[in-house]
Amino acid sequence: MNTFGQILRFTDFGESHGPAIGGVLDGFPAGMKIDFDAVDAMLARRRPGQSTLTSSRREADSVKFLSGIFEGRTTGTPIAFIIENTDARSSDYDELRDTYRPNHADYTYSVKYGIRDHRGGGRASARETAARVVAGALAMQYLEEFGISVKAAAEDNLEEKVKAAKSSSDTIGALVSCTIAGVPAGLGEPIFGKLQARLAFAMMSINAAKGFEYGDGFRAADMHGSESVDTPYVDSEGKVRMRSNHSGGIQGGISNGEDISFRVAFKPIATLPRPVETIDADGRSKILSVRGRHDPCVAPRVLPVVEAMAALTIMDAVLIAKASAHL
Amino acid sequence: MNTFGQILRFTDFGESHGPAIGGVLDGFPAGMKIDFDAVDAMLARRRPGQSTLTSSRREADSVKFLSGIFEGRTTGTPIAFIIENTDARSSDYDELRDTYRPNHADYTYSVKYGIRDHRGGGRASARETAARVVAGALAMQYLEEFGISVKAAAEDNLEEKVKAAKSSSDTIGALVSCTIAGVPAGLGEPIFGKLQARLAFAMMSINAAKGFEYGDGFRAADMHGSESVDTPYVDSEGKVRMRSNHSGGIQGGISNGEDISFRVAFKPIATLPRPVETIDADGRSKILSVRGRHDPCVAPRVLPVVEAMAALTIMDAVLIAKASAHL
Amino acid sequence: MNTFGQILRFTDFGESHGPAIGGVLDGFPAGMKIDFDAVDAMLARRRPGQSTLTSSRREADSVKFLSGIFEGRTTGTPIAFIIENTDARSSDYDELRDTYRPNHADYTYSVKYGIRDHRGGGRASARETAARVVAGALAMQYLEEFGISVKAAAEDNLEEKVKAAKSSSDTIGALVSCTIAGVPAGLGEPIFGKLQARLAFAMMSINAAKGFEYGDGFRAADMHGSESVDTPYVDSEGKVRMRSNHSGGIQGGISNGEDISFRVAFKPIATLPRPVETIDADGRSKILSVRGRHDPCVAPRVLPVVEAMAALTIMDAVLIAKASAHL
Amino acid sequence: MNTFGQILRFTDFGESHGPAIGGVLDGFPAGMKIDFDAVDAMLARRRPGQSTLTSSRREADSVKFLSGIFEGRTTGTPIAFIIENTDARSSDYDELRDTYRPNHADYTYSVKYGIRDHRGGGRASARETAARVVAGALAMQYLEEFGISVKAAAEDNLEEKVKAAKSSSDTIGALVSCTIAGVPAGLGEPIFGKLQARLAFAMMSINAAKGFEYGDGFRAADMHGSESVDTPYVDSEGKVRMRSNHSGGIQGGISNGEDISFRVAFKPIATLPRPVETIDADGRSKILSVRGRHDPCVAPRVLPVVEAMAALTIMDAVLIAKASAHL
Repeated sequence: MNTFGQILRFTDFGESHGPAIGGVLDGFPAGMKIDFDAVDAMLARRRPGQSTLTSSRREADSVKFLSGIFEGRTTGTPIAFIIENTDARSSDYDELRDTYRPNHADYTYSVKYGIRDHRGGGRASARETAARVVAGALAMQYLEEFGISVKAAAEDNLEEKVKAAKSSSDTIGALVSCTIAGVPAGLGEPIFGKLQARLAFAMMSINAAKGFEYGDGFRAADMHGSESVDTPYVDSEGKVRMRSNHSGGIQGGISNGEDISFRVAFKPIATLPRPVETIDADGRSKILSVRGRHDPCVAPRVLPVVEAMAALTIMDAVLIAKASAHL
Repeated sequence: MNTFGQILRFTDFGESHGPAIGGVLDGFPAGMKIDFDAVDAMLARRRPGQSTLTSSRREADSVKFLSGIFEGRTTGTPIAFIIENTDARSSDYDELRDTYRPNHADYTYSVKYGIRDHRGGGRASARETAARVVAGALAMQYLEEFGISVKAAAEDNLEEKVKAAKSSSDTIGALVSCTIAGVPAGLGEPIFGKLQARLAFAMMSINAAKGFEYGDGFRAADMHGSESVDTPYVDSEGKVRMRSNHSGGIQGGISNGEDISFRVAFKPIATLPRPVETIDADGRSKILSVRGRHDPCVAPRVLPVVEAMAALTIMDAVLIAKASAHL
Repeated sequence: MNTFGQILRFTDFGESHGPAIGGVLDGFPAGMKIDFDAVDAMLARRRPGQSTLTSSRREADSVKFLSGIFEGRTTGTPIAFIIENTDARSSDYDELRDTYRPNHADYTYSVKYGIRDHRGGGRASARETAARVVAGALAMQYLEEFGISVKAAAEDNLEEKVKAAKSSSDTIGALVSCTIAGVPAGLGEPIFGKLQARLAFAMMSINAAKGFEYGDGFRAADMHGSESVDTPYVDSEGKVRMRSNHSGGIQGGISNGEDISFRVAFKPIATLPRPVETIDADGRSKILSVRGRHDPCVAPRVLPVVEAMAALTIMDAVLIAKASAHL
Repeated sequence: MNTFGQILRFTDFGESHGPAIGGVLDGFPAGMKIDFDAVDAMLARRRPGQSTLTSSRREADSVKFLSGIFEGRTTGTPIAFIIENTDARSSDYDELRDTYRPNHADYTYSVKYGIRDHRGGGRASARETAARVVAGALAMQYLEEFGISVKAAAEDNLEEKVKAAKSSSDTIGALVSCTIAGVPAGLGEPIFGKLQARLAFAMMSINAAKGFEYGDGFRAADMHGSESVDTPYVDSEGKVRMRSNHSGGIQGGISNGEDISFRVAFKPIATLPRPVETIDADGRSKILSVRGRHDPCVAPRVLPVVEAMAALTIMDAVLIAKASAHL
């Protein structure tokens, strides 16, 4: 449940205010020289406090690798790493021990587990995604060696939207686009290995994601077949190409050599900077004013998380393709 | 890659014009009396030739169970079944042996596998989904014993849209809504076991699906937090409920006891009832007129497939919840 | 639970007296020309009634492939097959409906499932292993292309032992040796992917297996380190070899290029050709005389099953090695 | 490959001389109060330097839990932990950077990965098993709540054997017996979920294990059916019991309520306290005298490892049984 991937398997652990969050990345081929600065740079993009758009909470988010690396190279054994939780003001959360925040996982975790680390959202905190970014940063370096790149982008008017929300003591959703370029034709599998299904799973596993679409996406529901056809042709280098990309780079679950493009819709940050009505664990109504430092929008901090999950998905597909190469 | 689920594992096999398609459903608990008529009825809803909206091809789609059932009850061992392919006019497809149909899996399968059963789409044919319906029909019967029901519905104006497309020698996309009612709070897992991620994976594994959303879905990207809050309260029976259902029945990846609601966007049927430009396996341009019988729209035949995949997902979550019950 | 392997995944189904047994072999690379006669020949070695050592029951054991093969070659999609049960005298087993045969799975299945197909042992019948042989026969053909062969052999004095057991209305155990030749160095994984652990799992999943050992095996428990050392050297072709093979071809879980050798101990056939004391489902003591046709010893019929499971294990390791090839 | 189990999944990481070894235990039910002293006590039994039988190397082996525990109880989220490597004299191993120790994983790792952390055996070091013991200690506490206990024991004359080997500058193998008491009937699954197959896999994944047997084990190969029958009866409390336990507590892959008993054969410690002949990475012959501190025998330190792997296997079977409970 906390492991992602089939051949490249990422296991994620940790609570927001425990000693550390982290992960184990298993199945990573040996011999890759790691660019640790690039890992830090990707992690920095997810860090709070980096701009006026994000919360003022400082998280050092310094990653410490524990295994799977020798003299700067991957060894083929599991790459374990931790990010220690240093700036945890747990007392900020005392009121939440017995209170269910609306639109959070507090109630559902309580029902499911009967016990809950309430501090900072515990396991349900988005802080967990920092571990995904570390794993994804390594996957991106692997993909670069194959000429594959991953780039997520928020809508143009994000800064404006966020400022407006902030000024009205509110939060706001976000739409994120992502393009995976340089993917060769032939990645992905039929039926339950379809690339779009794996990408959808990857994206919908991110906190606050409410929708996923690729290629024409939801617009396709209202289109005619004659409008959405991608006509194949052979380019001047003898390569099969498509004259358009309604398919979003995937046909029959398998990449066709065009850019893979998809979009993810995120809901507004659930923690509102204003009093909200809710109930406590005994079912009593109460008004809750959440303290602590919170972002008004998942973007831009969610962008490296989207890239990380896309990179893990595509790298896994590369390894699967190696295993299933035809005779 | 052809197996779906974690504890309830459905393995799917078969090509459109091979001897049979079918599946193996492993992990199904013993002792359930099977309503075979209900299986047939659900399969009949996926069958072509049933209305003016669908193709005239007849598929008997008679399912034959091979194992896992004794005296009408499940035994806890794998339930294998086949649906024989009886009405296969393979010669209809001779031209497609070396031709890549646009927006189909022909080119990508050829790159990936170097060999391809071209007859009727082979493995990439939507005929494969009949096996999913059989497995899903059994899962629905299991869920009924827990008071859980699954119901998919196409948009209101479907019949009109389809007729218009048909009359203009075109095909059309579809938007399908699905509601899962009666789900108790506490199903699903955090992180990579999130119920919405598993549902997204299940839906995006269906042929022609281009997008998935749940609850507020893509609209959430433009909403404010204050607009999308589900306020909890305790109802007259002492049960925790939500005053609205922006969350679509899932919070933190775990069901909250409200109806689970999601929507799936499907692209237009890729096979157009008119000549289309394409290339053959040698890269030569050609005009292709596909013979054979094809639907103008995936709906309404896709509805039982959506229900089947939802039922398999939820039943798996029920079994996982049993395994992980807290002390 | 009914699926074996990680990249090459074999799912096995069927009861002894149901309509058919069979399997689905997923992850098999595309493009391999299948030698169907070799499949039949391997299946024939497992068939009863072939010699004085085995029972007189006839099983046609004719395999019918349903998918994954096109014009004689594998397509990369799941290879499903069935073997129909034709010679099933279910009435032979009526007495067993409510009786627990000693040393069989009757009691444990009843406790676990609450329902049981008692006819011919149902799911617990060794007839299930015929499906393994079909899958294994395909894996052996794949391995041959890499120069890898698998050969199991029973002890020298088997025929004598079996005749003696038969003449005293008894059954007898068997010790089976198996050698996998031609395995390149580098197959297998550390920790939970150790080749010996996977082979042990494969062998101990066969009915009646009671022990597994490789290389020096149980003798190693009484040996000194100085007696069991395999000294490496470089042969005239520049290849690293070992001067002895105490390690059985595996070091640190990974093949070292020497022959892999292991042994499996099988218990006597549990069904005795004489009256035995037991209880029925209500706990009443009774004397049971089992009718039906039964072998006195698992060997020689178990040999192709051992080979099949070894071949599936090694082919899976080959595919994993492809996926994890270092940069 | 570094993950063990199906519902209870243990992922293991770390090299002998890296910053830390550790693991992630996922799928552990919420709400269990942890006895940390019992974890330490089990870990202490695996620690070197504890008796004259073991090496003088000190390993603090102090476990630090990072997640999955809140106020002393399991939360249902992944339990991650590390054991820091504090007493690592890496310079002891400089000579081994380019030398293949006989009967170790040095050569096979080099072939497989092309890179190798040579310090202290790296990933192939038995130090890795300390992480298994931590996970196993938690599983044992869970099993205790169900009345299940696990106990491994070495042969009677172990101390004598080890002393003799030490005095002759040699090492020695060991035979370990293990009994799992209190297991209810009905745990385990048919075919590839057989309890004996899972136990064999678990045991053969331990460094130096060369053989596994359960119940009558290898002796069964020479026994007659009439000698090995376990006759069922109903005891004074109405419980089905067996008059003997040739089956070792498992029939048809499923526990029958009797004690589960198995034995594991371990080879002599591969590192000999004397010069040995070998080759270096360039294929040149050399005489190697390994420095460092090494045990003469895997026992008694391997006993808690055997218990840990047995406990993880049985706890996983308990959780699977919950999921598959019949209607």
